[in-house]
Amino acid sequence: MSTPSPSLTKVAIVGASGYSGEELCALLDRHPMAEVTAVFSRQYAGQSLGEVMPRFTGHKIASLVFTEADPAKVAACDAGVVFLALPHGVAAEYAAVALKAGKIVIDLSADFRLRDAVVYADYYGGEHPAPELLREAIYAIPELSREAIKTSPLIACAGCYPTSIQLPLIPLLKAGVLVPEGIVASSASGVSGAGKKAAVDYLYAECNENMRAYGLPRHRHLSEVEQQLSHAAGEKVAITFIPHLSPMNRGIHSTIVATPTSGKTVADLKKVLLETYANEPFVRIREQPPETKHVTGTNFCDIALFDEPRTGRVVILSVIDNLVKGAAGQAVQCFNVRAGLPETSGLL
Amino acid sequence: MSTPSPSLTKVAIVGASGYSGEELCALLDRHPMAEVTAVFSRQYAGQSLGEVMPRFTGHKIASLVFTEADPAKVAACDAGVVFLALPHGVAAEYAAVALKAGKIVIDLSADFRLRDAVVYADYYGGEHPAPELLREAIYAIPELSREAIKTSPLIACAGCYPTSIQLPLIPLLKAGVLVPEGIVASSASGVSGAGKKAAVDYLYAECNENMRAYGLPRHRHLSEVEQQLSHAAGEKVAITFIPHLSPMNRGIHSTIVATPTSGKTVADLKKVLLETYANEPFVRIREQPPETKHVTGTNFCDIALFDEPRTGRVVILSVIDNLVKGAAGQAVQCFNVRAGLPETSGLL
Amino acid sequence: MSTPSPSLTKVAIVGASGYSGEELCALLDRHPMAEVTAVFSRQYAGQSLGEVMPRFTGHKIASLVFTEADPAKVAACDAGVVFLALPHGVAAEYAAVALKAGKIVIDLSADFRLRDAVVYADYYGGEHPAPELLREAIYAIPELSREAIKTSPLIACAGCYPTSIQLPLIPLLKAGVLVPEGIVASSASGVSGAGKKAAVDYLYAECNENMRAYGLPRHRHLSEVEQQLSHAAGEKVAITFIPHLSPMNRGIHSTIVATPTSGKTVADLKKVLLETYANEPFVRIREQPPETKHVTGTNFCDIALFDEPRTGRVVILSVIDNLVKGAAGQAVQCFNVRAGLPETSGLL
Amino acid sequence: MSTPSPSLTKVAIVGASGYSGEELCALLDRHPMAEVTAVFSRQYAGQSLGEVMPRFTGHKIASLVFTEADPAKVAACDAGVVFLALPHGVAAEYAAVALKAGKIVIDLSADFRLRDAVVYADYYGGEHPAPELLREAIYAIPELSREAIKTSPLIACAGCYPTSIQLPLIPLLKAGVLVPEGIVASSASGVSGAGKKAAVDYLYAECNENMRAYGLPRHRHLSEVEQQLSHAAGEKVAITFIPHLSPMNRGIHSTIVATPTSGKTVADLKKVLLETYANEPFVRIREQPPETKHVTGTNFCDIALFDEPRTGRVVILSVIDNLVKGAAGQAVQCFNVRAGLPETSGLL
Repeated sequence: MSTPSPSLTKVAIVGASGYSGEELCALLDRHPMAEVTAVFSRQYAGQSLGEVMPRFTGHKIASLVFTEADPAKVAACDAGVVFLALPHGVAAEYAAVALKAGKIVIDLSADFRLRDAVVYADYYGGEHPAPELLREAIYAIPELSREAIKTSPLIACAGCYPTSIQLPLIPLLKAGVLVPEGIVASSASGVSGAGKKAAVDYLYAECNENMRAYGLPRHRHLSEVEQQLSHAAGEKVAITFIPHLSPMNRGIHSTIVATPTSGKTVADLKKVLLETYANEPFVRIREQPPETKHVTGTNFCDIALFDEPRTGRVVILSVIDNLVKGAAGQAVQCFNVRAGLPETSGLL
Repeated sequence: MSTPSPSLTKVAIVGASGYSGEELCALLDRHPMAEVTAVFSRQYAGQSLGEVMPRFTGHKIASLVFTEADPAKVAACDAGVVFLALPHGVAAEYAAVALKAGKIVIDLSADFRLRDAVVYADYYGGEHPAPELLREAIYAIPELSREAIKTSPLIACAGCYPTSIQLPLIPLLKAGVLVPEGIVASSASGVSGAGKKAAVDYLYAECNENMRAYGLPRHRHLSEVEQQLSHAAGEKVAITFIPHLSPMNRGIHSTIVATPTSGKTVADLKKVLLETYANEPFVRIREQPPETKHVTGTNFCDIALFDEPRTGRVVILSVIDNLVKGAAGQAVQCFNVRAGLPETSGLL
Repeated sequence: MSTPSPSLTKVAIVGASGYSGEELCALLDRHPMAEVTAVFSRQYAGQSLGEVMPRFTGHKIASLVFTEADPAKVAACDAGVVFLALPHGVAAEYAAVALKAGKIVIDLSADFRLRDAVVYADYYGGEHPAPELLREAIYAIPELSREAIKTSPLIACAGCYPTSIQLPLIPLLKAGVLVPEGIVASSASGVSGAGKKAAVDYLYAECNENMRAYGLPRHRHLSEVEQQLSHAAGEKVAITFIPHLSPMNRGIHSTIVATPTSGKTVADLKKVLLETYANEPFVRIREQPPETKHVTGTNFCDIALFDEPRTGRVVILSVIDNLVKGAAGQAVQCFNVRAGLPETSGLL
Repeated sequence: MSTPSPSLTKVAIVGASGYSGEELCALLDRHPMAEVTAVFSRQYAGQSLGEVMPRFTGHKIASLVFTEADPAKVAACDAGVVFLALPHGVAAEYAAVALKAGKIVIDLSADFRLRDAVVYADYYGGEHPAPELLREAIYAIPELSREAIKTSPLIACAGCYPTSIQLPLIPLLKAGVLVPEGIVASSASGVSGAGKKAAVDYLYAECNENMRAYGLPRHRHLSEVEQQLSHAAGEKVAITFIPHLSPMNRGIHSTIVATPTSGKTVADLKKVLLETYANEPFVRIREQPPETKHVTGTNFCDIALFDEPRTGRVVILSVIDNLVKGAAGQAVQCFNVRAGLPETSGLL
């Protein structure tokens, strides 16, 4: 492994105050090779990171002072890599300016995940803010698009639900062992997935001792999942996806039901996944149903498959931490790949 | 409504110390017409109910003293109706003796839910303890089998998951608006569903901040669900059913994916359910995704349907409180039907 | 017991959409003698209660339509009793107008709990909105001020923390068995106590897996506690009170440390409480540490006392459900007392 | 800093399967200088750590195979340092044999925390299993006994509650700014503090939505707290200590009420703590009430002080993660001190 260019280990974070941004701060603070040199925020400009997020007091990162979030200021900072932990629609402008300034952009928002601006408008309700950049962007789950990440200037990290669904399904569809029709994904997320915004729906007393589906009939994440599954299957794939809110802070549990192609068994499917992920540090194929607590605070995705001879279907279970492998951890993993660092740096 | 026979309003509870039994005590304590005259327990014989379950101190029921659980003693008590809140395999013996003594038996266990002793052995692992009684027993969800309950001496209350799945599906299958193949039910239950037994798997620190599937590939409740769906469809129905444990005390959330029969829309399905349940006090058809908290502590089942034109399928959501409509509440509702009382007595 | 005047069983609720208001709706809906004839809300005027609070669909109360909250409209309604579940500072105006219209007012806010408008201004930060009514108001915990409640037109229900602290302490101070100096009360509340307002501090992901003190150095409830303890002790009492937020929906747990007067033992204190509450349906003196779950959803207050010979102090534990005995249940109990109904109506 | 002796960086863990043991595995796995060379367990002998604790699959530590726990085998292993994460009463025998074999013992149990075998017998109910070792043992909280830890062969890590109480109180008592009489500590712990043993009391459905005090009138941890506070004050100190169980996995919140000595203010007390902990990496003096979530998964202790002019007392709040600063983290910190490593190694 060659020594990374110094500029690529200086990083900036825009939008550090949400849950994904906070997790990004935690991961980069203990990253042995990255140095956070700037943090940007509209709300907290002028305050130190330690003041805004008391858990960081005593950590290196705590003394950084928030600069006012502004695309020009982000472009002018000394970091070679800019992480965007911003709402969709807002990230694009920052990305455009930072790219022009020669920076690598790692975007945690949904702005550059879709190849097609029309689909974006359909799902996200508004014209795409920078459609000209869509072609440059790489849809990024390192296990599935590592090579492209290595050279891309604009890395669009996959969403949380989509990561949990694609890691098991993409290799199976590519290998032709899974019927692309009739796939059902029923997923549950911890409440941090809803973000750190004041809203009655996400109050403790509304979410605790409660479980509910939401986002029906078409959650936004469906668009990126279907785009990527279709690409893997070589044909248009439409799936049923039902997200739920579960009373926990973190974790995504996806339960996927699908049909093996004729003559294929669950053992064949498992073999495909074992081979695909044999050397991957963050994907674990399990014998027992995976539990979200086994991946809490980690960048792992745990997957298990179960046969259902009565129906001829297979049940695939997949769990991640929505804030780590589903957001900040994936972004750091992409950063490691892009900067030529060991992929597990700061993550294991 | 005729005055009920006095003996039918004197009731006994066997196995009051589990979560379903405790809920049964709570419901019957405030029931305006039932009188609990005896409670039986192996573990707590000689102690008062108030000592064993401190929440009941100050309630009428608290002063009852547990009699040692023994079939002969149950048969000899003065109650006309006996509720069995016992583990499967144990309930059958009590039922047999109580029936011989002329009592009505309302069983919350799985012992009399299956028509076929072979299926019982297959799913519950052991010969059925009283196969001769299977023909007498009524599989009981009052909304779906009210008439039979009115005269049956042996009422086998449906299980928790099965109730949440059958209430939406049975009328649709009967009406022929749903394809019986390819049904997927992904359900999540609160941890009280696992019962009040000391086991590391159900410790607070194991279940909190965690979500996991279990019971794969064949949860026991699958047997009764398929029996009843097959009966409704008039053909053998095999479904995919995946239960999960969610970090909450109470509640079941079932997410069901199915296909309308040719030419049928979600509006047609909804119409069937609205008509079927038009006069039912405990089933509510919703426009929005139902939330388990809306039914916590109640005997309601809330159901909503969502169209999915992209796949031609329909998503059906159903929620109940596993300890009420999924256990004790359903048992009391059966009791009301059987005793000729207003069906909502003690439940609304 | 004489037949209550019909007008006293027709009741109105103003501000039904918060957590206390919702609990009040639930309790009054199943109250055998009260009839809710009007509900008022600014936010929901024109909508039915069932639309706004889906858990009530199918209940009698669900069909009531919210009238716009306005003191004149409240004064003009046909109810003889008006429950105010409004923020402090807002309740007073409604109370004034409703009282003039001859109605009984049962106020769940803090507006009429203090005898002294100066103390109100000091603790609640603003001039008292209706100081002339303070003299008319009764500070109401039925167990401690039942006689006054029977005839008062303006019943100021005690706060949640204060109820849990006063029920054990007032009788002990009155009996002279407790030293009024040096009392420490460390209390924890479920998050519903913070109300149903959108605020980041009360988001699920902020409160779950977290415990914190707040309201230091002087929580507002301190003012009413000290007023009432001083009255009971016959001298000015200043206590240390530290409220905490605990990750649960409901429940208050108060841990009180105090010193018996010379020569008195924990047995003497216990005797005072046992005698005081011998005939009270909602206070239970326990041998074991009380648990909030034993009172969840009930109007009970459970109390236990423990000796500490090493320090000469006594530890008093007290638990209530903050939304029931700490708010709506207490209000209904007051209503029962005021309307001449059995005190447990709708509560047991 | 001199290079540590190699043998001191090879470590063994006895009793890795409880919650403290698991946390110890996690911390030592990512420790940059320690190498876990052996893990011992009665229950899991022959199984790999990864099999027993699935969260570790893919980590270095996962491939270690449990050796049967046996004092002789522990003594014979190649590690220079042995961590004992065993129940009290069991740890002593292992310690005795390991010490004889020349190993450093870091004990997480209560076996060597008390100086006096009589007090041990009084609080822990049984003769001390190795009283002759009590004199050798160091009661260890590195911030308060660092020098002694550097050379001790037997390091008795302080308990979880005691750490949260002593870190604020010991410096204040030593400085003579706090009255040693009348101290009250009301603490709440997450349920992992109860350990990983199957017991109905710690089931999810028993602990969730519940809060309760326990261990009254004398929790075992009181013995070590009073021993250490007395030592600091130079006189016998008796405090009131009430532990509670709070519905969360991790975290201890201690609320301490005490009286400053004549003429001293909260500012004086704060100054003492700020000076004492000026260079300590793991103690943070806060302005706002500390929250357990700010220390979850960390080795920090956060402390804040609040004045109470109305009573002349001071309220001191202190939070830690019971499994980290209250157990495994403290043990690793002690290890770092003893092995001459940077004290924050593997902890920040």
